[in-house]
Amino acid sequence: MNNATLDRQIHELVVQIKAALLDKGESMATAESCTGGLIAASIVAEPGSSDILAGGIVAYRNEVKENLLGVPHAVLEQFGAVSAQTVEAMAEGALRKFGCQWAVSTSGIAGPTGAEPGKPVGFIWMCVANNREKVSFSEIFDGNRNEIRQKSVLMVLGKLLFLINNQKSTCTNEH
Amino acid sequence: MNNATLDRQIHELVVQIKAALLDKGESMATAESCTGGLIAASIVAEPGSSDILAGGIVAYRNEVKENLLGVPHAVLEQFGAVSAQTVEAMAEGALRKFGCQWAVSTSGIAGPTGAEPGKPVGFIWMCVANNREKVSFSEIFDGNRNEIRQKSVLMVLGKLLFLINNQKSTCTNEH
Repeated sequence: MNNATLDRQIHELVVQIKAALLDKGESMATAESCTGGLIAASIVAEPGSSDILAGGIVAYRNEVKENLLGVPHAVLEQFGAVSAQTVEAMAEGALRKFGCQWAVSTSGIAGPTGAEPGKPVGFIWMCVANNREKVSFSEIFDGNRNEIRQKSVLMVLGKLLFLINNQKSTCTNEH
Repeated sequence: MNNATLDRQIHELVVQIKAALLDKGESMATAESCTGGLIAASIVAEPGSSDILAGGIVAYRNEVKENLLGVPHAVLEQFGAVSAQTVEAMAEGALRKFGCQWAVSTSGIAGPTGAEPGKPVGFIWMCVANNREKVSFSEIFDGNRNEIRQKSVLMVLGKLLFLINNQKSTCTNEH
């Protein structure tokens, strides 16, 4: 079901994120649509994850994005679930819900169906947020459904690690 | 990171659960502690999962079990996070939060540390609930941290499938 190389890369990243967050005494939360719990599961795969993972929400349906994460209905209507605005609102919602320092979110078309004009299979929006800023970015990944989901996990966790390690520098919103 | 045989068994179970829920027009939610998103991720690994998965909550910390799933503080105090009472309250919380027909929950000691007197590594409580009943059960799984988590996913999803397929019979609470 999973690509072992991607799995190992995710594992190595989680080890580094865990060390960085422990070092700062900070914790994180997840708000996942297309990755559907895979980010949280990757973190919980490491022993002692309760020290760094506050919790997570799998918001696969739009109603859940609205009701549990507070994504405004108007944002979903205007920009769609796969948009910078939606992943930013999801990450902000996770920060609020879990009261932690960091949140990551994903929303995209993992395929094999679901493509829309301008949003092909593999098109994923991701966001990393803390209480001062949020950084959102998109990518079009190739591979099958699970590879696309794993690559999304890898990219958003890579950005999280970068931002944790560069908290004092000025981060820009990339969209 | 994962045991491929367990992975395949989970996949086969998810395919059957998806077919059974689609057939009945019903959906499910997850409330995961020790499995940490692995149940939700296993379901989202299947295309079209939004038809059957309302959403999920990763409630790894006790505060999240209380605040997001409504597990009473007194239950956590009296019986602990790894107990029939806690997984039942988690599943009930997920049913309420997501307004769906089915919920599954897990809470246990995935190891390698965290064992308590009477609660060894591998000791997991699980629950499957619908609006009429809840069935909770425990098991002591062997294996490493990830095998223990995968075996928990397999067992709770197996019970879910059984109960979906036997909705008209009388199910008993097993604890």
